[in-house]
Amino acid sequence: MDFRTEFKPLTVQPQEIEAKSFEMITEELGPHDFTEEQYPVVQRVIHASADFELGRSLVFHPRAIEAGIEAIRAGRTVVADVQMVQVGISKPRLEKFGGKVNVYISDPDVMEEAKRLNTTRAIISVRKAIREAEGGIFAIGNAPTALLELIRLVKEGEARPGLIVGVPVGFVSAAESKEELLQLDVPFITNIGRKGGSPVAVAAVNALSLMAEKRG
Amino acid sequence: MDFRTEFKPLTVQPQEIEAKSFEMITEELGPHDFTEEQYPVVQRVIHASADFELGRSLVFHPRAIEAGIEAIRAGRTVVADVQMVQVGISKPRLEKFGGKVNVYISDPDVMEEAKRLNTTRAIISVRKAIREAEGGIFAIGNAPTALLELIRLVKEGEARPGLIVGVPVGFVSAAESKEELLQLDVPFITNIGRKGGSPVAVAAVNALSLMAEKRG
Repeated sequence: MDFRTEFKPLTVQPQEIEAKSFEMITEELGPHDFTEEQYPVVQRVIHASADFELGRSLVFHPRAIEAGIEAIRAGRTVVADVQMVQVGISKPRLEKFGGKVNVYISDPDVMEEAKRLNTTRAIISVRKAIREAEGGIFAIGNAPTALLELIRLVKEGEARPGLIVGVPVGFVSAAESKEELLQLDVPFITNIGRKGGSPVAVAAVNALSLMAEKRG
Repeated sequence: MDFRTEFKPLTVQPQEIEAKSFEMITEELGPHDFTEEQYPVVQRVIHASADFELGRSLVFHPRAIEAGIEAIRAGRTVVADVQMVQVGISKPRLEKFGGKVNVYISDPDVMEEAKRLNTTRAIISVRKAIREAEGGIFAIGNAPTALLELIRLVKEGEARPGLIVGVPVGFVSAAESKEELLQLDVPFITNIGRKGGSPVAVAAVNALSLMAEKRG
């Protein structure tokens, strides 16, 4: 195949870029109150967003990191709210432990039920996930209604997620959904405010799976 | 299928959420220097990031919006640098005009060639794209090396993209690659600084395809 290899290739190594970026982040972030085990998540979120304000806004339930690592090592399913989160999460590290990433939001039965109930597909997809991915990690980067529904199901004793990564972005209900999550006594990773998004959810889960892998 | 429909469904409509968000954005953004045709892109980028600073940092080549709409209406291929961008872009509106979204970064031949040349898959995937997606829209949300390679190929007369959406995020080369893009006289949408990312690239392309659709 002709890839025009007569051009001088740049010699930029992805690993070098990442290492250099991580150094810059640590230097620029300066003093912070995150624990040593939380910091890799913070670092990777800043790496994915170039946003220190967003990184500093992260909040961890005291058991969040351990719960996330345990869920991954137990091969629990990661549930993504949208496909952007699903494709961004690194699969090989999860698969090593028997895990996978599911997303239900475009399933025909979810779309049909959402239409029937005049509600969001995100809400219905969470209901489907709590049956099919019990004990899993919910990675919610987009849909505040998904996070609100998951919180409601936890409160009613209907859902027992291993970890909730709840970082939806947006102007309507996103910040409010995260405030509600902060009140729950289940392992969560979230942030204060409107910012968030798919790359943030992805970064958190990928940081956790790297930590899970390092445990050997 | 049992979706626990005995629970009271929330009556939140995605269309209402978006309309309300767009109102809030216009109100909070206040005065700005974007043109009427650029503004829908700015608005959708802020919607996707909840980041007004990022929205205000957008820069448009004078022909960017027209070129983007024309490329979509002509059914030109959209080239995504990574899968997160690929899955985020709304397909039905592109398909109406005969267009699609391609991503080459995980193609086996790209991976092999990157290894052989000791360079990034992003660079090789751009080389593949300029042959297979001539005149298309490049939507680069992640890989500065992809944007730098595309710029180099444009300068050498090897690539003639219809529009470059160049908004890679990161600490190494991202801001620099966008500074270089600003010097090119090809239609581009970019932003100043390190911020950017998949949702930004997706928001820009989706805003353009909505505008293309409105032309009827």
